[in-house]
Amino acid sequence: MEVERTIWWDSGICTIDQTKLPESYEIIKIGTVRTLVEAIKSLRIRGAPALGAAGGYGVALAAHRSTFMDPESILGELKIAAEMIRSSRPTAVNLAWGVDRVLKAAQAASEDGEEAIRSRALAEAERIADEDIAANRAIGKIGSKQLDDGDRVLTHCNAGRLACVGWGTALGVIRSAVEEGKSIEVYSCETRPLNQGSRLTAWELSRDGIPVTLICDGAAASLMRQGKIDKAIVGADRVTEDAVFNKIGTYSHALSAKANQIPFYVAAPISTFDQFHLEHEIEIEERSEDEVLSLNGKALAPKGVHARNPAFDATPIDLLSGIITEKGMFRPPLMPFIGSGLAKTARL
Amino acid sequence: MEVERTIWWDSGICTIDQTKLPESYEIIKIGTVRTLVEAIKSLRIRGAPALGAAGGYGVALAAHRSTFMDPESILGELKIAAEMIRSSRPTAVNLAWGVDRVLKAAQAASEDGEEAIRSRALAEAERIADEDIAANRAIGKIGSKQLDDGDRVLTHCNAGRLACVGWGTALGVIRSAVEEGKSIEVYSCETRPLNQGSRLTAWELSRDGIPVTLICDGAAASLMRQGKIDKAIVGADRVTEDAVFNKIGTYSHALSAKANQIPFYVAAPISTFDQFHLEHEIEIEERSEDEVLSLNGKALAPKGVHARNPAFDATPIDLLSGIITEKGMFRPPLMPFIGSGLAKTARL
Repeated sequence: MEVERTIWWDSGICTIDQTKLPESYEIIKIGTVRTLVEAIKSLRIRGAPALGAAGGYGVALAAHRSTFMDPESILGELKIAAEMIRSSRPTAVNLAWGVDRVLKAAQAASEDGEEAIRSRALAEAERIADEDIAANRAIGKIGSKQLDDGDRVLTHCNAGRLACVGWGTALGVIRSAVEEGKSIEVYSCETRPLNQGSRLTAWELSRDGIPVTLICDGAAASLMRQGKIDKAIVGADRVTEDAVFNKIGTYSHALSAKANQIPFYVAAPISTFDQFHLEHEIEIEERSEDEVLSLNGKALAPKGVHARNPAFDATPIDLLSGIITEKGMFRPPLMPFIGSGLAKTARL
Repeated sequence: MEVERTIWWDSGICTIDQTKLPESYEIIKIGTVRTLVEAIKSLRIRGAPALGAAGGYGVALAAHRSTFMDPESILGELKIAAEMIRSSRPTAVNLAWGVDRVLKAAQAASEDGEEAIRSRALAEAERIADEDIAANRAIGKIGSKQLDDGDRVLTHCNAGRLACVGWGTALGVIRSAVEEGKSIEVYSCETRPLNQGSRLTAWELSRDGIPVTLICDGAAASLMRQGKIDKAIVGADRVTEDAVFNKIGTYSHALSAKANQIPFYVAAPISTFDQFHLEHEIEIEERSEDEVLSLNGKALAPKGVHARNPAFDATPIDLLSGIITEKGMFRPPLMPFIGSGLAKTARL
């Protein structure tokens, strides 16, 4: 099955400008690393798996645009580009993972000359993108077993095809369940301050004909308490041994689900796993306070008032019912989950 | 000490139009019951204690405006007005309480003629307003004992002077602590969908010089987990034996506070207590989906997508550290708390 893509290569990085949705569907073509960094920072491209592909394509783009003729100079340029891209968003682990994978492929190709660097960097980036879709399809197949016909499923932010190269992680699970003939109704949390739930998840799902109802983030707990939510499923920006980092608000939904005996799943590819750090070592990106203080250029708060705007939160691993990956579903505790050890020790 | 008032009588009901804040501070004068009902529904007047006073003044207004000359006809008109006002917002118990108190005073005055009805209805409404300020000052004095110098206090929605006749319940406790010389920093949840936290709480507190930082509702749990919140305090729209009804989002904050061992207080006058019902019997007002789907007239979601918009949620009483009233602080369980029995059995 051909899966619609959110990010692809066409003599540059093509992607849907997600800041324009749902008002308009605009494809942008990114031709420089600097433009890519801006696009990542401003969330034109967002979502951990999509950032993995963007990181990979970004290094390929740097190779493609390099005017140097000798491998060493090109690699030097790629390293600078890699650092620029990596630091554009600190919390999502996939970004650095995608960057590093393509950088490594470029380095391995250097003995074969500058053309080999360019072509193999791009081939590796394309491989990341293809693998992401395959991983999401696998996540969907594995995860959909957890959803029953008639389920009302809560989600937060956008872990859909817009957050990935295609299909989606959390929404991929829902899409797979629907594809299998199950009737699923989605409650999408609007996800303040940037309303990815209202703008992106609602757009994706309604476009696919999957019933979706928007709620304010603060309404999720109450709906759970009233027995109106059967399951919850979200994506992840980074999974450590002890916590899942995801869009701010996720942790409180996990607490509410636990308190109301509602299964709470995370759907994420293995590329989201960070085996080298623990929760307390991870930097949570603090974004501009303006995202909280105003909307569409109009002030929401009196002048002079300040805001805090952490983009992510950490959900302790023991609040989860399972982490759905392309390699299977894992239940906490995840330790030790280093590399394939994860599959051996914690897989169901 | 003279307390600034949010609602008062001046040949009609005068109040601050809270839908205009923080952009502009406008006093509106309400001259008919129909206008009052519109003002309540559209949240120009809001907050449980303020609604108690508004309900009382509304019946006084109906008496004042009645063109009937005989007591029986006036009382008949007052009953219709009372029903209109009562049903304008179903969840806040104080509204019906204020309406009924003034209606009863009017009925008791009927033997003394129509002028007595008018004057005693107004006197009773003024009494409600005065008592509200006295209750809030008492709540502040009692509640401030729970706050320590240097505390970072989370609040949700607006339980400030704008929600009351003056001083405030939750913010009244904070004001009292500050008045006593304690240094308090407030984290105000923006409170979607109508942003009372951004618009009203931030406005009130910054106007008083009390440090206030805005956060998205979904960020509260994470700040608690990071040890950045010491206490949480909110108001209430209705307190039953088993639950506190307050602005949507409160329940999830209470769960997060419990999970992170943070004291969670409700500050509310006894007029907010409903001794006749349990949680499952209370209707939670569902407001227009437009409040979630758009902001300031601009769409937040794609066309055709629907939203649910419950205005309140129920927090089970056992999640609370205490309910601060003008009669003292009560710890759950509250049962039995009928009338003054409350003070005898559950008071600390």
